[in-house]
Amino acid sequence: MLKKSIFCTILLLASSLSVMAEDGSKLWLRFGIKNRAKVICDGCTSSPTVTIARHELEQYYDGKAVKLTIDKSIPSDGGFEISGTRDNRLISAGNETGLLYGTYALLRGDTIKGLNRPVFKLRILNHWDNLDSSIERGYAGTSIFWNKAMSIDTARIREYARANASIGINGTVLNNVNASPKMLSRPYLLKVRQIADILRPYGIRVYLSVNFASPMGLGGLPTADPLNSKVQKWWKKKAKEIYAEIPDFGGFLVKANSEGQPGPGDYKRSHSDGANMLADAVAPFNGTIIWRSFVYGANHKGEDRVKQAVSEFEPCDGKFRSNVILQSKNGPLDFQPREPYAPIFDRMRHTPQIAELQITQEYLGQSNHLVYLAPMWKEFFSFVSPKNLAGIAGVSNIGNDANWCGHHFAQANWYAFGRLAWNPALSSRKIAEEWLMQTFVADESLISMMLRSREACVDYMMPLGLHHIFKFDHHYGPEPDGFKASYPIEWCPVYYHRADNKGIGFDRSTKGSGATAQYREPYRTQYDSITTCPEEYLLWFHHVPWTYRTLSGRNIIEEMQYRYDRGVKEVEDFTAIWQAMRDDIDQQRWNEVNNRLHIQLKDANEWRSTCMDYFNKKKSGLK
Amino acid sequence: MLKKSIFCTILLLASSLSVMAEDGSKLWLRFGIKNRAKVICDGCTSSPTVTIARHELEQYYDGKAVKLTIDKSIPSDGGFEISGTRDNRLISAGNETGLLYGTYALLRGDTIKGLNRPVFKLRILNHWDNLDSSIERGYAGTSIFWNKAMSIDTARIREYARANASIGINGTVLNNVNASPKMLSRPYLLKVRQIADILRPYGIRVYLSVNFASPMGLGGLPTADPLNSKVQKWWKKKAKEIYAEIPDFGGFLVKANSEGQPGPGDYKRSHSDGANMLADAVAPFNGTIIWRSFVYGANHKGEDRVKQAVSEFEPCDGKFRSNVILQSKNGPLDFQPREPYAPIFDRMRHTPQIAELQITQEYLGQSNHLVYLAPMWKEFFSFVSPKNLAGIAGVSNIGNDANWCGHHFAQANWYAFGRLAWNPALSSRKIAEEWLMQTFVADESLISMMLRSREACVDYMMPLGLHHIFKFDHHYGPEPDGFKASYPIEWCPVYYHRADNKGIGFDRSTKGSGATAQYREPYRTQYDSITTCPEEYLLWFHHVPWTYRTLSGRNIIEEMQYRYDRGVKEVEDFTAIWQAMRDDIDQQRWNEVNNRLHIQLKDANEWRSTCMDYFNKKKSGLK
Repeated sequence: MLKKSIFCTILLLASSLSVMAEDGSKLWLRFGIKNRAKVICDGCTSSPTVTIARHELEQYYDGKAVKLTIDKSIPSDGGFEISGTRDNRLISAGNETGLLYGTYALLRGDTIKGLNRPVFKLRILNHWDNLDSSIERGYAGTSIFWNKAMSIDTARIREYARANASIGINGTVLNNVNASPKMLSRPYLLKVRQIADILRPYGIRVYLSVNFASPMGLGGLPTADPLNSKVQKWWKKKAKEIYAEIPDFGGFLVKANSEGQPGPGDYKRSHSDGANMLADAVAPFNGTIIWRSFVYGANHKGEDRVKQAVSEFEPCDGKFRSNVILQSKNGPLDFQPREPYAPIFDRMRHTPQIAELQITQEYLGQSNHLVYLAPMWKEFFSFVSPKNLAGIAGVSNIGNDANWCGHHFAQANWYAFGRLAWNPALSSRKIAEEWLMQTFVADESLISMMLRSREACVDYMMPLGLHHIFKFDHHYGPEPDGFKASYPIEWCPVYYHRADNKGIGFDRSTKGSGATAQYREPYRTQYDSITTCPEEYLLWFHHVPWTYRTLSGRNIIEEMQYRYDRGVKEVEDFTAIWQAMRDDIDQQRWNEVNNRLHIQLKDANEWRSTCMDYFNKKKSGLK
Repeated sequence: MLKKSIFCTILLLASSLSVMAEDGSKLWLRFGIKNRAKVICDGCTSSPTVTIARHELEQYYDGKAVKLTIDKSIPSDGGFEISGTRDNRLISAGNETGLLYGTYALLRGDTIKGLNRPVFKLRILNHWDNLDSSIERGYAGTSIFWNKAMSIDTARIREYARANASIGINGTVLNNVNASPKMLSRPYLLKVRQIADILRPYGIRVYLSVNFASPMGLGGLPTADPLNSKVQKWWKKKAKEIYAEIPDFGGFLVKANSEGQPGPGDYKRSHSDGANMLADAVAPFNGTIIWRSFVYGANHKGEDRVKQAVSEFEPCDGKFRSNVILQSKNGPLDFQPREPYAPIFDRMRHTPQIAELQITQEYLGQSNHLVYLAPMWKEFFSFVSPKNLAGIAGVSNIGNDANWCGHHFAQANWYAFGRLAWNPALSSRKIAEEWLMQTFVADESLISMMLRSREACVDYMMPLGLHHIFKFDHHYGPEPDGFKASYPIEWCPVYYHRADNKGIGFDRSTKGSGATAQYREPYRTQYDSITTCPEEYLLWFHHVPWTYRTLSGRNIIEEMQYRYDRGVKEVEDFTAIWQAMRDDIDQQRWNEVNNRLHIQLKDANEWRSTCMDYFNKKKSGLK
């Protein structure tokens, strides 16, 4: 009936204009040129930041006039205020970065009035980029910062800065936490300076990951002992050298004594000894040391891995310098599709903390699976209050692929990270709507697909609190029988699911590893008992006999089957939703997403069959 | 600095245009006349519903053309789909009501594409309106439906219908659940017909509350025994009479054997006997019986009041006709600022259920306190899944006051009820934004005030799970020492808080009244233990010694003081937020809200001092 009418022919013509080939390279910044707005600035200098804001508005704002005003009554934290009408718009802010944030808010159609301030002070991307251009856990091409030729694509870095500024990100760590000492060498520091100069007008400060043994690897000292005066001097000199080039340099991110990285423990010094030594080096320049708590297998080898961060760091609480921040992953293990929150956030009462979230989907289907992560991050914030955090860090999913993130929908996770870093109270749905409106089309079925995708992933990979049953090393696909004698046991799936002919799951109750005791009440007691433990964490905290009945009345293996089936069914639905959107989306992006959805469906089926076959065998006492 | 510039003078002039006297009578339907759109309808008749949709769009839509299409592939549940561009808009729906819903969605700026369908099938307002024009628990004037002169203000009822249609409400119960037999008399039924004729084009079906003893009070029979054939015949005849006038009449809402109302229990018959007799009377006309579970003090007198609904109705589960729906309040007591969910929603596995929410703020400061209820209702949905409910009912806050609801911000609760009835996944913030944008101004500080207001109310009235310490009868203000020997004990505050020199709170654990045992796991075990019970329900489920330390480390009386203080402080903040908005809001509404905020602040202080004085005395063993 529709096609018969003239009216609809017009509609089809109009919509076909937008259905041109697209490669996703423009991200969510797909504004059409308007060239209508006259932009003036009151109280501003003609600084690079204001010039960017003005330029964006002049080109893309669909109204007659915009006035930018520095208003000293507004805090200089990037907060802004939008007022006026479409043709007489006013953006006020306490500083120029705030004017830029207000500019992008206005361009995406956010006309909520009143003061709009960021909740987290530090909103940082972590790039696990290596100097050889490879990216650890990167699934979208090579590094945009580093390559062997040491060349820099200034246009791409500027686009990167613009995208980040548009969602309020204000810091970036340019290199992998598994850091090379070379990073701090003169040639690389000059590159860092070049990058910092591009990012600065967009309100983004640069940080570097450092190798704790840099004084040895780079400086030629025989030790990196933090209490050694030559080592201290080396770092002070290095800090001075860096700040001479980059006066607003943010500081160092440090992975120490973790997974083979050097650290103060090599000299029987504590984490606070190591962090404080670096903190003293950057303190004169207002620099910050961000110290990661992701440490296991060292001083507490043999202890349940999820307990080790607290065991390791709690004794240091209160001993860090005031410019040290501890950075911890959201869960106590390692970026699984679902983990309970990491209890270290309850335990360090005197140390500011950053939550490290992983935008790149190492354990969530990488760049092949459509998994929208906002619901996962909001789940974390429901346990760990944003007001108790100094900032959040997101392990980036950005590379040199044309569309930046590999999967077109993975862009939504970069976007959502920024939006939640600004305001964690925004709903997952609201962010999905915003992003879809700017990239594809804000359609109920697409919103629904995004909102359901994380729970689907949990179901088809590891329901009921199962965790880390991934294939070794690359962490893509299932390997429930994974065991390698040459590997640390904490890398082996069998260590985590503990399935045998009696039951399944890791007993972390007080009768088991006692990990539950690290939680604050009411979670401590709640998680400790199989009766009160929420089912989504059941096999995380309990070893459950196969005869156990879940709340549905099903026994464990039936419940697993039910959930794996549900997860696969969801992905089938996603492919159907996408199929129905074919006419509304440009061919290139539609095809690329469609291909990946079919990979996701195949993978979901593989997860279900591999895991259910294995666990059914275990249950029968086979193997 | 702002005032000096010409630019801002323009802004001020522009904004002053909107700052005219306003009485709030237009609700959220304050569209400006556009008269731009050409509207055509494909596959529609020129029915009243389509005529309304067309008229709304022609007047108020800010684009060139809108086409309405009946698309039979879309379910006829009111769902709709919006597509096209601003100047060539298409609204498709499975029926004409869907076209009307799509029309209002478009007018409020909702351009999300794709199928938008209601989650709840039944979205009903309950008016507790008496035939003498008074409204039980009404704080906004007299009834818009009933008065002694039996006159009908058709214009106002049409505005009422339009407002409801704009948020998707599709049913309304026109009279108080404490119903007069007169309601079913011929003169009143003819009025009901008049009202139904006005509401019908807006997609709203009419229901009536009935007095179970109507065959006696109205019919002159000596009994209302549901198993008596004359009684049955009377109801069948009455149903036939009603449906002859109102062919799409929804059905009856019944409060039976509750708080003095007659019911089947008067003849030793069960609730199912009573409901089924009525169900048989309306079944030939596809009518529905909505039977309320709000029953206490009859068959289970002496039992903890919050347990009685389950005790009373669980034995009937499975015995109701298929056209009977059970309607239960969200909490097991009575619309307190915070209650745990009512466990009856877990227990009736074979009976469809409606959740009854109270829009009118009987226990939340009535029309004097600004309390935005969406967060409270969403809290309920986090325990009781919408997909397990047949519908929701909202006890209306509407009266003949110019602004409909007494407090201008109470309109937001009517609005939020409708929006959540359509889609309970919408966030409280999103609904607040939408409503503010249509009524005042979407301002961050106003959004924040609304979102914080319910928690503030809990804090300054009854923190930590305290409940029902209101003044008798009118339920406005505190009366912690309330006790009247002539009243049922379940109406007395002292029955609920149980404070003495040892401690405070109602022990509903298995060691006390055993109410926890009515909950499904994990809540049953979680609520049963003082360690795992969430603190917001602490004194609801436990009698706690004064020495008990909360998670904060404070003892109970300190924690109470802390929370009462926090609540009062929040209201102080609200007055300051409102003060700062003075220039952005018309004088009349600003003044009216401002006056009420100051009453709220005074009341919050009274709650704090009255309760803390009383509980401190109890703790000291005084009184």
